[in-house]
Amino acid sequence: MARNITPRKDNYSQWYLDVIKAAELADYAPVRGCMVIRPTGYAIWENIQAKLDAEFKRTGHVNAYFPLLIPNSFFQREAEHVEGFAPELAMVTHGGGEELEEPYAVRPTSETVIGYMYSKWIQSWRDLPVLINQWCNVMRWEKRPRLFLRTSEFLWQEGHTAHETAEEAQEETIRMLGVYRKVLEEELAVPVLAGEKTAGERFPGADHTYTCEAMMSDGKALQSATSHFLGQNFAKAFNIQYQNRQGELAYCWTSSWGMSTRTIGAVIMTHSDDDGLIIPPRIAPVKAVIIPLSKDESIAENVLFPKAKELAAKLDEELGGMFTKVDTDFHARPADRFFTHLQHGIPLRLELGEKDLAAGTVRLVRRDTGAKLDVKNESVIPTVKQLLTDIQADMFKRAKDFREANTHDAKTYDELKAIIDSEGGFVRAYFGGTPEDEVRIREETGATPRVILPGDNMGKCIITGQDNARLTIFAKAY
Amino acid sequence: MARNITPRKDNYSQWYLDVIKAAELADYAPVRGCMVIRPTGYAIWENIQAKLDAEFKRTGHVNAYFPLLIPNSFFQREAEHVEGFAPELAMVTHGGGEELEEPYAVRPTSETVIGYMYSKWIQSWRDLPVLINQWCNVMRWEKRPRLFLRTSEFLWQEGHTAHETAEEAQEETIRMLGVYRKVLEEELAVPVLAGEKTAGERFPGADHTYTCEAMMSDGKALQSATSHFLGQNFAKAFNIQYQNRQGELAYCWTSSWGMSTRTIGAVIMTHSDDDGLIIPPRIAPVKAVIIPLSKDESIAENVLFPKAKELAAKLDEELGGMFTKVDTDFHARPADRFFTHLQHGIPLRLELGEKDLAAGTVRLVRRDTGAKLDVKNESVIPTVKQLLTDIQADMFKRAKDFREANTHDAKTYDELKAIIDSEGGFVRAYFGGTPEDEVRIREETGATPRVILPGDNMGKCIITGQDNARLTIFAKAY
Repeated sequence: MARNITPRKDNYSQWYLDVIKAAELADYAPVRGCMVIRPTGYAIWENIQAKLDAEFKRTGHVNAYFPLLIPNSFFQREAEHVEGFAPELAMVTHGGGEELEEPYAVRPTSETVIGYMYSKWIQSWRDLPVLINQWCNVMRWEKRPRLFLRTSEFLWQEGHTAHETAEEAQEETIRMLGVYRKVLEEELAVPVLAGEKTAGERFPGADHTYTCEAMMSDGKALQSATSHFLGQNFAKAFNIQYQNRQGELAYCWTSSWGMSTRTIGAVIMTHSDDDGLIIPPRIAPVKAVIIPLSKDESIAENVLFPKAKELAAKLDEELGGMFTKVDTDFHARPADRFFTHLQHGIPLRLELGEKDLAAGTVRLVRRDTGAKLDVKNESVIPTVKQLLTDIQADMFKRAKDFREANTHDAKTYDELKAIIDSEGGFVRAYFGGTPEDEVRIREETGATPRVILPGDNMGKCIITGQDNARLTIFAKAY
Repeated sequence: MARNITPRKDNYSQWYLDVIKAAELADYAPVRGCMVIRPTGYAIWENIQAKLDAEFKRTGHVNAYFPLLIPNSFFQREAEHVEGFAPELAMVTHGGGEELEEPYAVRPTSETVIGYMYSKWIQSWRDLPVLINQWCNVMRWEKRPRLFLRTSEFLWQEGHTAHETAEEAQEETIRMLGVYRKVLEEELAVPVLAGEKTAGERFPGADHTYTCEAMMSDGKALQSATSHFLGQNFAKAFNIQYQNRQGELAYCWTSSWGMSTRTIGAVIMTHSDDDGLIIPPRIAPVKAVIIPLSKDESIAENVLFPKAKELAAKLDEELGGMFTKVDTDFHARPADRFFTHLQHGIPLRLELGEKDLAAGTVRLVRRDTGAKLDVKNESVIPTVKQLLTDIQADMFKRAKDFREANTHDAKTYDELKAIIDSEGGFVRAYFGGTPEDEVRIREETGATPRVILPGDNMGKCIITGQDNARLTIFAKAY
């Protein structure tokens, strides 16, 4: 067991921070509630960005950039929006040495200022749909910060689209939910339940909010991405009108959707163990580390290093990028070297010692299972490729099995309370209550409705007792 | 001549804004001094980013992310730095509904907060060098904003490195100047003079500042990227100390370097003409547009469109990306269609009409020269590839020839004044004066020393009359 990492069973929160520290993913900044994303953490984010951005472009979106600052009055125009975000705003009151006439908010999200610009750009149905995404930083003042999960500043992308009809905007909302699900499951190996949020959990200003909910290894839920059908709420607030095909003025229908650096927290808490970080191969900045092992400086430098570097170059060519690292720090103890790479979450370790050299083999060690495999030189490259695919698939399956094993059904509110109190995890129950009921459940159990499961599964509400309630996941959440 | 674009000779500033508007590159935001970068402008920035980022990684750098907000007290620690940036700061004074104990500045640049983090991360010479870059937004309050050139918020990258020795930090500073020069010249086709800045033009807190200076098509200079040797100034201000190879505590030597969305302004003002934007092929989001031409709907849709789309697919495959666009708006007048693409700066137009179809040819039209070429079907793809290479090279050469034709020598201060007053452009003169002399020259002529030309070229200073003055470029500047 790693002495620098608190075991999960002792203190899950401390374990999470210890994993981040040992892997050098992030650090607290000298600014209240803010973080610094260190190179290893940022490289994971770059990989997530690349996968998402390719999906956005494949589905017809373009990127743009809107201002960081938003006039305070913009928030007032949409009643629910201002209520939701006002308590979290950071305000710029002075610029260039002078007090500003109207304070600006640092954007917590950009529906308002983008809505303002869309009202200028969109004139006719021929201008529609507008399908724009923005990669940027946002700020929501946070009193109890946690690295990646809740910080006053975070990085994300926010898509904002405008359409002729409600149907098209709704289709877009669901399409992007599907993109998130695909990237989270296929790239981050984080299984999610994708579906609608209850009224009490909606984005402020949305008609419908959809979410991808993941289960962390302590059984709590983490909202990993959201997609909102905004109806005509922002179109009316910002006068986004167009001349329709009949020559009449009409309001657009809009959507917005976002995924953030929070998903790095989801990756950490889905996959890592008491030894530290485990990164899924498809988003790992380093997929394999080659460790030449010899106490003999001459053998290390003249025989093993060149062989390791040759293998790394071949692997990189095969993997299509700079994904292999060679550890040349042969003065250090092998156990310490293994430990460092293990704590950095590198999916695969390749040991190349004098014995391996003599036997014409390389020892491969999986980060996720610790399984060791001695492989003949000529089979190393295909085996590494296959193992990386296997590790990715196994990590996803393990997380999905864990979620299923920790999901329970509750037929009554008392059952729900009992499960949340004892096992925790996800609880499936029929729910058709109001936002006030949601508040009560949260106060009494600590759990909230995370996602309404898609499909026609209807039953009797555990709160109201009425029929036609939807099957809903309840859980404590990050 | 384009009626929506003011000719350069009538009003260069208005021409610049008209070009941006016609190409839909950017728009003013509803926030004082800020801009919105529209999808076409942002796609150019993404291309510039990709080229730069690849160079940074090739030279051993990694990306990270530091906080947007910086405690106001950090600026006070470096005397020149605070003097330089205090007048331009935007201040956050309230967060989460409360007044902050200490106001935060929105970062105008990040030497201070990154220096603070480096002091925590760097312990030993083994931790050095630290070679980190950050892609982000920054804010410098701007009273007279101009799209891309001077806006209160802009996007950039800022590299921050720490080294054991002055020599290594100096080497890094010059290496990154070389990276900027390479990307500006080879990718943006913007010829630059790379060299040191005079004392009066240095970055606040730097020992030496190096610049890439370009000449715009009105003869003015535009500083396109800078690289700073910071000595131990920030290391001492933020206590970035390490244990050296002798076991003693020593201060690091640091560098910083940056290039911003301002370079999009440089691209516009280097290459565009009175018809509108011209984008160099290597950073053009769309490199070629194919325009099927027919008034006959059936021929257009059944014959020309499929042929155009097939050609686009082949071209994209050959060019290695989604770089070709097909214009299917056949109801519009051909002249209007040509005009739109021309104003968007697309390097190459491919016309595919009924006559071309019969002749088995495609008409290629260059954006930069207007030259037309009828090419046999089987030669279209190699010809397009060759033309894109030619256009890139010709645009660079044209800009360089223009700079050389508009650079004059001045042996005396009176000559310098006369040239700035009459021809404008760049003036080469020996200069060895003080920052006070630089202020006087600016007040009397409007010109400033832009860059000291590299090499051993020394002579008598036009201001002080003393020998050993360096050959320096003077010009009015953006």
